[in-house]
Amino acid sequence: MQIKLILAGYGTVGKEFVKLIHEKSSFIQKEFGLELILVGIIGRDFKLYHPEGLCIDTLLKLGGGSEALHKYIEQHSVRNEKMNGHVFVESTPTNLENGNPGKQYILQAIENGMDIVSISKGALVTSWKEISEAGRAANVRIRYSGATAAALPTLDIGQFSLAGCKIERIEGVLNGTTNYILTKMHEDNTSYAEALQQAQQKGIAETNPSLDVSGMDSACKLLLLSNSLLHTEYTLEDISIEGIENLSKQDIRKAKEQGKQFKLLARAYTGDAGEVRLEVQPYAVDSSHSLASVIGTEKGITFYTDTMGAVSSIGGASNPRGAAAAALKDVINLYRKNIL
Amino acid sequence: MQIKLILAGYGTVGKEFVKLIHEKSSFIQKEFGLELILVGIIGRDFKLYHPEGLCIDTLLKLGGGSEALHKYIEQHSVRNEKMNGHVFVESTPTNLENGNPGKQYILQAIENGMDIVSISKGALVTSWKEISEAGRAANVRIRYSGATAAALPTLDIGQFSLAGCKIERIEGVLNGTTNYILTKMHEDNTSYAEALQQAQQKGIAETNPSLDVSGMDSACKLLLLSNSLLHTEYTLEDISIEGIENLSKQDIRKAKEQGKQFKLLARAYTGDAGEVRLEVQPYAVDSSHSLASVIGTEKGITFYTDTMGAVSSIGGASNPRGAAAAALKDVINLYRKNIL
Repeated sequence: MQIKLILAGYGTVGKEFVKLIHEKSSFIQKEFGLELILVGIIGRDFKLYHPEGLCIDTLLKLGGGSEALHKYIEQHSVRNEKMNGHVFVESTPTNLENGNPGKQYILQAIENGMDIVSISKGALVTSWKEISEAGRAANVRIRYSGATAAALPTLDIGQFSLAGCKIERIEGVLNGTTNYILTKMHEDNTSYAEALQQAQQKGIAETNPSLDVSGMDSACKLLLLSNSLLHTEYTLEDISIEGIENLSKQDIRKAKEQGKQFKLLARAYTGDAGEVRLEVQPYAVDSSHSLASVIGTEKGITFYTDTMGAVSSIGGASNPRGAAAAALKDVINLYRKNIL
Repeated sequence: MQIKLILAGYGTVGKEFVKLIHEKSSFIQKEFGLELILVGIIGRDFKLYHPEGLCIDTLLKLGGGSEALHKYIEQHSVRNEKMNGHVFVESTPTNLENGNPGKQYILQAIENGMDIVSISKGALVTSWKEISEAGRAANVRIRYSGATAAALPTLDIGQFSLAGCKIERIEGVLNGTTNYILTKMHEDNTSYAEALQQAQQKGIAETNPSLDVSGMDSACKLLLLSNSLLHTEYTLEDISIEGIENLSKQDIRKAKEQGKQFKLLARAYTGDAGEVRLEVQPYAVDSSHSLASVIGTEKGITFYTDTMGAVSSIGGASNPRGAAAAALKDVINLYRKNIL
């Protein structure tokens, strides 16, 4: 079965996704009976499209980003026509203002009857209701493992492994950067500023780390998990968010003296009036907590259920390849025949 | 959509399964659009069948086991005709000699075109090749979450969350009873015999604990995971199995002095000749090991992959309700329309 893919965003993760489908093409064909054909890429400045498939082999040799797409156009025939495919993979930079350009792309792709696999969060976080309603109306499927902790299985577990359970509570360490900083502060007695600097030097934290350290990235993931697994229709404004910027060496030391360590926990639980409450805040957990062993850039999540008890997943590569692999998984699971 | 179920085995787990579909009937209808109808039960001494569905409400009030089935027959009309349904749930006691009676039931159900959800291990462990080939030939689907650590997601993660990855290695703490005993020995400095006795007093270990403590139960689960996820066609004889019976207080103390603790690890890895090797043995892991935090009756598994790094799942209720919930999950995932 041929599956034609269109990719929006040719940054680090986008390129990693293209690499993966190239590397794994024969494996995926053999294992799942799927022939993945990349027919289009929408970059910031250029679009590539060919209904028979782009020449990935060449593209990957041309470097990254806009420059690579431009060089490709110079060397290969592309078609200036309406893009058509089975699945639209959204990997543009996350924009939490209005979700664009991802949002426009996704709505357009839905209108064209394509299934959606989103790696970036912006569109889904800002426009959950609009996008999910459009998807239902057009009878297309929307997946976003890449946007909800990527290589760490979160959505899969909630939707699939816990099918039939009532999920009573969710707790997650959903951001690797802040967990790295907190781990450093705990283990090496460094201040927040020092630990952040180390994380930046190692390429773990970005130059502008605010999305991570403010708790916003965790909140985005929590929002998507809650909206899909707990059937809320919340926005970021419904989440109480506190970051890790104000944690002092003393806070950490005090926790340590009590045998505890700080984690930036994203939590969904039921409030007194039966409503779902969402919260991101630093929390000192003791060593028996299910996420205490989530160390460094690792992530983890625990689902508390009525019939299966507490189920945690921990780990998953926190890097562009892991995020790309999560999107590839979504693509495969949408079209595979042999298991599901 | 109506889904008719036939259950074999009305022991603790079988009855728990019946309870669950009763309790969750309207939830499952609402959430997944599935109306689960229990049309038949095959017990040790009696069979109940009614093509329109058994009266679960009454049945559950009649106690458990053969006696309950007998009372039901006295009070309700049942049909003495060939059983027919969509899915066959196998919950007879595990028989590692030849897999019967489960094996006969499963092969018969496959012949009748029913999908299979197995909670017990005997048939699949003893007759993997025969059953999977029969399933393929009849184009029916076979699921066995209940037989592979039950409420702990193992198969799901391998098949679904890691789709597209190469699973390079699997390590699991797959048996709650032995993990409880090892945890006791580690924490309280008790001997194996004392810890086993405590486990038996608490109902965690059976009177005859040999299946657990010999490593055989872990080996069965490892076998099923390897055969499905790593495409082996192994039998129990292909696994090197060592139990925990010979671990001394001194072994534990020595490990403890090195900051380590014993886990009964079930492992699948690639040997020098590229072959998959399966092993169950006690192993002293240090505190940074991904399964070090799996304590007491908990279970856990780590998959090492090429693109997603190491992904662990930990927890899941180790009790009959958890096992029944795992089977219910399989039933739902076989027939649901809205996600997969």
